[in-house]
Amino acid sequence: MFSKLRLGLLTSRQCTKVHDGILSLPVLNNAKRDIHTDNGGREIKKKYSVGLFGCGRIAGVHLKNILRNRRLDLKWIVEQDRDRLQEVKEQFVLGDEIQFYKPSDRDQLLSDKSLDAVIVVSPTNTHTEYICESLKKGKSVFTEKPAGESVSDIRKCYETAEENGLTLVTGYTRRFDAEFCDVKNALDNGSLGKLQCIKTTTRDSPKPSYTFLKSADSTGCNILADLGVHDIDMIVWLTKAKKPESIFINCHVHDDELKDCGEPDSLVGMIKYPDGTLVTMDVFRESCYGYDIRLEAFGTKGMALAENPRESATVIDGVSGGRSRRIFNSFPQRFEAPFEAELEHFVDCLDGKAVPLITKDESLQVAEIIEKGVQSYKEKRLVMF
Amino acid sequence: MFSKLRLGLLTSRQCTKVHDGILSLPVLNNAKRDIHTDNGGREIKKKYSVGLFGCGRIAGVHLKNILRNRRLDLKWIVEQDRDRLQEVKEQFVLGDEIQFYKPSDRDQLLSDKSLDAVIVVSPTNTHTEYICESLKKGKSVFTEKPAGESVSDIRKCYETAEENGLTLVTGYTRRFDAEFCDVKNALDNGSLGKLQCIKTTTRDSPKPSYTFLKSADSTGCNILADLGVHDIDMIVWLTKAKKPESIFINCHVHDDELKDCGEPDSLVGMIKYPDGTLVTMDVFRESCYGYDIRLEAFGTKGMALAENPRESATVIDGVSGGRSRRIFNSFPQRFEAPFEAELEHFVDCLDGKAVPLITKDESLQVAEIIEKGVQSYKEKRLVMF
Amino acid sequence: MFSKLRLGLLTSRQCTKVHDGILSLPVLNNAKRDIHTDNGGREIKKKYSVGLFGCGRIAGVHLKNILRNRRLDLKWIVEQDRDRLQEVKEQFVLGDEIQFYKPSDRDQLLSDKSLDAVIVVSPTNTHTEYICESLKKGKSVFTEKPAGESVSDIRKCYETAEENGLTLVTGYTRRFDAEFCDVKNALDNGSLGKLQCIKTTTRDSPKPSYTFLKSADSTGCNILADLGVHDIDMIVWLTKAKKPESIFINCHVHDDELKDCGEPDSLVGMIKYPDGTLVTMDVFRESCYGYDIRLEAFGTKGMALAENPRESATVIDGVSGGRSRRIFNSFPQRFEAPFEAELEHFVDCLDGKAVPLITKDESLQVAEIIEKGVQSYKEKRLVMF
Amino acid sequence: MFSKLRLGLLTSRQCTKVHDGILSLPVLNNAKRDIHTDNGGREIKKKYSVGLFGCGRIAGVHLKNILRNRRLDLKWIVEQDRDRLQEVKEQFVLGDEIQFYKPSDRDQLLSDKSLDAVIVVSPTNTHTEYICESLKKGKSVFTEKPAGESVSDIRKCYETAEENGLTLVTGYTRRFDAEFCDVKNALDNGSLGKLQCIKTTTRDSPKPSYTFLKSADSTGCNILADLGVHDIDMIVWLTKAKKPESIFINCHVHDDELKDCGEPDSLVGMIKYPDGTLVTMDVFRESCYGYDIRLEAFGTKGMALAENPRESATVIDGVSGGRSRRIFNSFPQRFEAPFEAELEHFVDCLDGKAVPLITKDESLQVAEIIEKGVQSYKEKRLVMF
Repeated sequence: MFSKLRLGLLTSRQCTKVHDGILSLPVLNNAKRDIHTDNGGREIKKKYSVGLFGCGRIAGVHLKNILRNRRLDLKWIVEQDRDRLQEVKEQFVLGDEIQFYKPSDRDQLLSDKSLDAVIVVSPTNTHTEYICESLKKGKSVFTEKPAGESVSDIRKCYETAEENGLTLVTGYTRRFDAEFCDVKNALDNGSLGKLQCIKTTTRDSPKPSYTFLKSADSTGCNILADLGVHDIDMIVWLTKAKKPESIFINCHVHDDELKDCGEPDSLVGMIKYPDGTLVTMDVFRESCYGYDIRLEAFGTKGMALAENPRESATVIDGVSGGRSRRIFNSFPQRFEAPFEAELEHFVDCLDGKAVPLITKDESLQVAEIIEKGVQSYKEKRLVMF
Repeated sequence: MFSKLRLGLLTSRQCTKVHDGILSLPVLNNAKRDIHTDNGGREIKKKYSVGLFGCGRIAGVHLKNILRNRRLDLKWIVEQDRDRLQEVKEQFVLGDEIQFYKPSDRDQLLSDKSLDAVIVVSPTNTHTEYICESLKKGKSVFTEKPAGESVSDIRKCYETAEENGLTLVTGYTRRFDAEFCDVKNALDNGSLGKLQCIKTTTRDSPKPSYTFLKSADSTGCNILADLGVHDIDMIVWLTKAKKPESIFINCHVHDDELKDCGEPDSLVGMIKYPDGTLVTMDVFRESCYGYDIRLEAFGTKGMALAENPRESATVIDGVSGGRSRRIFNSFPQRFEAPFEAELEHFVDCLDGKAVPLITKDESLQVAEIIEKGVQSYKEKRLVMF
Repeated sequence: MFSKLRLGLLTSRQCTKVHDGILSLPVLNNAKRDIHTDNGGREIKKKYSVGLFGCGRIAGVHLKNILRNRRLDLKWIVEQDRDRLQEVKEQFVLGDEIQFYKPSDRDQLLSDKSLDAVIVVSPTNTHTEYICESLKKGKSVFTEKPAGESVSDIRKCYETAEENGLTLVTGYTRRFDAEFCDVKNALDNGSLGKLQCIKTTTRDSPKPSYTFLKSADSTGCNILADLGVHDIDMIVWLTKAKKPESIFINCHVHDDELKDCGEPDSLVGMIKYPDGTLVTMDVFRESCYGYDIRLEAFGTKGMALAENPRESATVIDGVSGGRSRRIFNSFPQRFEAPFEAELEHFVDCLDGKAVPLITKDESLQVAEIIEKGVQSYKEKRLVMF
Repeated sequence: MFSKLRLGLLTSRQCTKVHDGILSLPVLNNAKRDIHTDNGGREIKKKYSVGLFGCGRIAGVHLKNILRNRRLDLKWIVEQDRDRLQEVKEQFVLGDEIQFYKPSDRDQLLSDKSLDAVIVVSPTNTHTEYICESLKKGKSVFTEKPAGESVSDIRKCYETAEENGLTLVTGYTRRFDAEFCDVKNALDNGSLGKLQCIKTTTRDSPKPSYTFLKSADSTGCNILADLGVHDIDMIVWLTKAKKPESIFINCHVHDDELKDCGEPDSLVGMIKYPDGTLVTMDVFRESCYGYDIRLEAFGTKGMALAENPRESATVIDGVSGGRSRRIFNSFPQRFEAPFEAELEHFVDCLDGKAVPLITKDESLQVAEIIEKGVQSYKEKRLVMF
């Protein structure tokens, strides 16, 4: 019943009917908490009052979805950069119904009793602080991944949520994507048999700015933590957060401008699990042909392969062969539906109709693999878990 | 420049960059009218105050997009059916900011000077009346296709718009779809050479209710006017509204319940143009495997084929072969992005940044082909134009 | 058991295992006749001594397969054109083991007791004569389609075969193709439910010579009889040779050189069956992007679509989108495996392990539809059966 | 001109026209040697008299192609196993024109002056001996890969060929496959820009017998040398036989029966090149869904991906989604055309129209990578070159 509700929100670009169990989305481990009903027992959909921390590039994606969500009522946006604020106001034709504040106004804003929840999409190094403060003030939290820069910070966030009995949802967007859900589900329902191999690909498009790329050290946005993190989340999801046996990562920097700061722009890696599951991954900072994101799971009974959808299904045949449109250019296009779905999932959690799809254990395991992975490529050696 | 703006709004599920002209969306014949600028010359995006006629099944799709559009401010909804109204209020969590009226309140509502435009998605037999009344009261109009039940009604609507110097946009949704735009564009930019053949497919899913299907006679919703109309719009678009030479249509009714009312549920047809372009079409009331909508254009230099996108790009290979998800189940899923884009196009027209993509001549030619087509299958003979 | 044997010969480019009945090749209606066994009961594969009538373009394809077939021993080739003979001798590095004769030597050649069978790939207007002569002399016959230029000629061939208790196989090559067999089988095993629509496409590549095209009248190679014949064979196969209700065909001639002789180079057609099955077909003399041959069957439970395979499954993605190789250039490439398989099927028939997959009734129905179809486009009207 | 000849033989399942350089097959570095012409200067195609060493499973594939090749005249087959001989005689309906000998008859057979060449498809541990003996007796050699069990054996073979001025072609079949040639060519003609990543997949089907798998140690048929060898050949081909920097391979054995003999059935590996090219590979002994062989090359300007062709291009859509046939079941089906083409390439080399596509350096580099790779997985550590 709940999974049906969950499916409902994925309707548009995704599945609408689930046939024979093979291609359906994963069943959520839901727990009904408090559903509001009117006198006649009919469910009343509550609107939740929310605030938004951060207005950067990725925040634009979230802001669009918050404004579109019929269940969320955005009260304020906290953003330091006034130019960016003005840009966002114009882009979304925002009126006076939404107020703008500075980060230093946090305490006052979080003290507002009428506020139900916050959405954290500020820079990664502010996540843990904003998340914990909000939870302590009784606000549920949706946060862009990751909840913190280290295993211990992430643990702190989840423990604070547990202590306060509140919802904390980390936005690992691929969990809400039709292609990736198909792979997960094929594995979970037995269609693939015993898992033997996972292969992931992430090639970014367009290439991020040098400003961003060169700040990797100070902000934790190295190629693995920033770009490969979603691949690792997929691996953790498919392996049910089991502890790996070893990791080995090979890096290279092709871009001359990045060579000075020693930051790699290319990476391939292997992870081995105690049960023999073998993983390969490849991560690149730039793909000229679009945002190339793939996932493959191979088992004794079959293989599931999440391919890249294209901008159009039209094919043009001419004298020199067939032509098709590009794969999607970047994450806002490729993951438009999942970004919307993860926010809807947060609303379902607030309703008590769902529990967070991304668990504490999974979030911690992702962070741990990244730490060992970075160690491997820095020390150029196999690292054991 | 304007086409760039137009492309902007199609970004999400569609093209983000247009390369080498072959796969881009069609260039619109735009005319700048009045752009609002502030003192610094920066464009100010105006919000338009709108009303909505009709709240039926398809209206739900439009209502969602009106509420999501940051440029539109919905003031009221006119709907006779109070149960349907209640349903919609709950589905979209509507509050008191939107008022509900009966059709008889039209005159009063349209007299409101602050109202900029109306959106007409009421039953087809009310279109012409509502459209003309609104235009005469100075409101621009977006209408679900068609603008009227006959060639003369449609002409009346467009002439009223011309007389009042207002925008009238008819919602032929496939014009805003990435797949179909690719075909149109490949033809227009010469990639296909001289056009020789067009093939269309429309197979509905799920099958409409018998209530709907049996009312075909009285409401003009026969299989050609109601279902095949979009195919004919595509044919008219690709052939630039040229007059055909002849049409022949074969029908059959497979469904026993429909046999009594003599309404066909299956149709194949051929149209011939004076320049030798040959057209085939097939239209069916029910496809069990999803909403099957295809378009093919074949010319001396190549072929463009708009295939059905699927719910997911994941493929699962097992002992018995490959498996993929269904094509989209129905029109709200298949045409989610185009429905949003056609409304945005309407806003662009209100801004004066675009002129309607669907022209009077095209709308009239579509209606004329339908009339001749219905005549052909009723009289079981070739009908000349 | 026999169907397994039949599958064996299709192994290479086609299916190797048949799973769950859905995608298997059609079961043949086989009858064991005389299998040669040695004393131990082990089957001995007999070699058959054969002669070949005709050495033209298509004969090259057959000659290659005759020479490759380990069960056939080619004794002689009858061909009028000495230049063509020389060409073929060099192309296939033929030595003295194969003798060359003129058509006038037929009587003597067919009187050879040691000869088992003949293969007829001479011009269509010689088929009936050569076939009947050979059968009367006790030789089994494989013939390129069609067995004759008229319904009565074809009937005569089959009756002569019946009278002499010999095998006559007509080479409707698509019957032996993996793609088309999949469609037939999906229909026959119930996967598609009740048949409602068939769609066929044949677009030739490269364009035949004007010499050939202009000789249509005298040789019966008009666009329908020569090119559309295989589509009609597919329609007859899928509908089990049932009699249609009506046919309507639209033609056009785009090519200026052909306009004078009034021979169409483009055709679309519709056939209607009494049970409501609706058919559309399109046939063109020239496709610049390769040999485009498709078949679609749509029913109440699903659709099967035989798409064009490509020269390679490799996809290249670059800045301007995806690229793939052409579909196959022409029939020798596209139908390489089926041409080999149909000859192997003939050997199976000689062995008594199979009966001809193409029946007399089917051959006659194909010819009848062509006759009515030509009448339709010449008289520009619907023709009833 | 020569490359055209080369393309000619690949016609059937592969490319027939080469358009715009992007998807063509690789240009061979050919050198004309001695072409036989008659008095009129017209080229006479010579027939070559050949012998065959070995009649095992893979030999069946080669024997079929030798018998089909119009330029080769098979004189004898050397095979120890008399049962296998009988099997082959029946399968190919062989008569007395082909004689059968024991390995001990080699010296006498190779002394036959009328013999032009030999084809070596006996067990790997006999290759070097048979190859060198044949070359020393003046016979050109086509050998199944590899030419020997060690780097030094392979070097010996090539040096013997050089010393005797004879042709030695090693049958790395994927070099002659349309899919893989497309990848190579896209890289060589600049379509992919600077190479950054190669990914290979080889998953065997059906699983080889335990007899074969357990004999890995004694026969050099470990998973890397026997199965991964073709992937490594592709890597060597794409990187132009450059020396890698390092290799790391992870193995596992899932199959209980193989655990005892310590032979892995699963492998993933990474190779790094000094120029930063990063390679991942995955190799599995069993894939239930067919013979899964893929190759991907990613560079600064694009990506080429050799996907698996399927048994048929037909797609069946039903209530539960889309279905397609399996990928090819095993190597004889998947590589039918390349097996034929590599033999034709050997004939071209005998004619002097081509020089071997697989070079000594490439063969040696393949062997070296395998040796380091086996060392890596045995010692569970990174191995440097």
